[in-house]
Amino acid sequence: MAHPSLFIDALQYNNWSEEVFQQIQDGGMSAIHVTICYHEDFQEMVQNVADWNSRFETYADKIFLGRTASDVLKAQQEGRTAIFFGFQNCSPIEDNIALVEICHRLGARFMQLTYNNQSLLATGCYEENDSGITRMGKQVIKEMNRVGLVVDMSHSAERSTMDAIEISERPIAITHANPSFWHPALRNKSNEVLKALGESGGMLGFSVYPHHLKGNSNCTSESFCEMIASTADLMGISHIGIGSDLCQNQPDSVVEWMRNGTWTNERDFGEGSAGFAGFPDQPSWFRDNRDFNNIATGLKDVGFSNDDVAAVMGGNWLNFFESSFNKI
Amino acid sequence: MAHPSLFIDALQYNNWSEEVFQQIQDGGMSAIHVTICYHEDFQEMVQNVADWNSRFETYADKIFLGRTASDVLKAQQEGRTAIFFGFQNCSPIEDNIALVEICHRLGARFMQLTYNNQSLLATGCYEENDSGITRMGKQVIKEMNRVGLVVDMSHSAERSTMDAIEISERPIAITHANPSFWHPALRNKSNEVLKALGESGGMLGFSVYPHHLKGNSNCTSESFCEMIASTADLMGISHIGIGSDLCQNQPDSVVEWMRNGTWTNERDFGEGSAGFAGFPDQPSWFRDNRDFNNIATGLKDVGFSNDDVAAVMGGNWLNFFESSFNKI
Repeated sequence: MAHPSLFIDALQYNNWSEEVFQQIQDGGMSAIHVTICYHEDFQEMVQNVADWNSRFETYADKIFLGRTASDVLKAQQEGRTAIFFGFQNCSPIEDNIALVEICHRLGARFMQLTYNNQSLLATGCYEENDSGITRMGKQVIKEMNRVGLVVDMSHSAERSTMDAIEISERPIAITHANPSFWHPALRNKSNEVLKALGESGGMLGFSVYPHHLKGNSNCTSESFCEMIASTADLMGISHIGIGSDLCQNQPDSVVEWMRNGTWTNERDFGEGSAGFAGFPDQPSWFRDNRDFNNIATGLKDVGFSNDDVAAVMGGNWLNFFESSFNKI
Repeated sequence: MAHPSLFIDALQYNNWSEEVFQQIQDGGMSAIHVTICYHEDFQEMVQNVADWNSRFETYADKIFLGRTASDVLKAQQEGRTAIFFGFQNCSPIEDNIALVEICHRLGARFMQLTYNNQSLLATGCYEENDSGITRMGKQVIKEMNRVGLVVDMSHSAERSTMDAIEISERPIAITHANPSFWHPALRNKSNEVLKALGESGGMLGFSVYPHHLKGNSNCTSESFCEMIASTADLMGISHIGIGSDLCQNQPDSVVEWMRNGTWTNERDFGEGSAGFAGFPDQPSWFRDNRDFNNIATGLKDVGFSNDDVAAVMGGNWLNFFESSFNKI
């Protein structure tokens, strides 16, 4: 199975297994940014790294730890997949700025400043008020810039995101979200944010998580790809990629944990509701990594050139990795 | 040495020693709220409790752990001092609401929602923007109300403080601050906050920390006591007490740690400055616990009645402890 383009997915959180890694290999994925933290503190995150180290040993024919852009090319050449670590929350650095460099050394390449709620660094997208980047946030962004840990604002609120784009001396990422002009979920992003992101050299990864899709689980590939075309017009073709937010084979208890962590005594349903609390069904055209090529096909169908398809499916993320991940 | 009034100080963070405990006994202090956390996480805070347990053993003739208002009366009767624990930050509960009850069980009776900076719960007084109480903050206040852990907004920003007064179903405290009408430090409080605090049944503890005083270290006892009289007019005589913020015998490295913790790579000087980074000198009339009676004398000198002096020096805090600390 030949893949003309290099495929990169900038966000997955699957229930990892041999089956999933086989699908990743079959899908021709050269790199995947995997989440290793939603609510974990430093020590709990370290255990997740240890679990990945064990997977890297067991499935060495399929996966290895990715640290720089050259690991993506190496993976493509060897028919394996480079796994890049990222945090959806800043909880692993706790209140200690020195842990930024430690986390980077352990392999982290992306860190969200917030996960839905207010953090020590910035405001999340589900808070009522958004005060922007905090005093500690300014310090931590500077430190992230220094060590090469990318600021990810996927779950952040509007003003905090604009602040991060402004304050960060390196381009930032929104690894997994869609434009709100297409589907006005709280997690999706305004034109203002997307324009500023593109102009600053940042990257948006399009999400295939049903709550972020127009029509949710029934979203068509055509609608999704037309939305990508409109976003390319808004941001520039070089600033977009895929960040599918695939959470394959996860039980519903996982999405409940994502939403509630240990911060509340009442149940929070996030993008769901009391009557629809679990993971939504994936759209028919994107069920696992073997379907990644469906997006490439869909993009061609709505008129993207081969070069532009290659850019969106992985080339743009590769360039971003190249300029962002400068240290091992 | 007879003390007609019962003396309570609602904030001290001394370098604890036999000498200091002797002064506390000589000063006739029936209760002191001591800080056992500025930046500590849960486990570090537990070690501070363990250190206090050791002091309670060693100096059992002078101090014991205070948990309810009746411990204050017991202390007064026995010529000892009840030591009440409090946190100046919410860091010990980390991101786990279940730790609120655990901390209360370990003896904590006050918890600030913020210490100068943005926390997971609220905004601190040194942040540029104040978004008020967060989603987690609302949950945690409810839990604090349930277990009897008092919300303390001494180092919080204006809107967050107003929110906390509004949201909390029990009266809150500002254990150590002064009115900004007297000395417009960022740490001092507006008339609006003080009025709302008094109307809601809350308490203000007047600080003798020089950065909170008009004239700083040169502040006169007369000016301090006249300020108390004006604040009594504003808030009502029943809602004020002393929270001296005494940090006796601490090296300057401690104030540097208070300000910087581990959140910044640049030096923050808080209320000080690069040229004046250390602890300021205490005013001549309040150097240690033996000077507590000087405040009582000062209040009489500016016209307070004996009953009102007794209320400010301890009676009001005793009433507040009575209604706030309902469980062991």
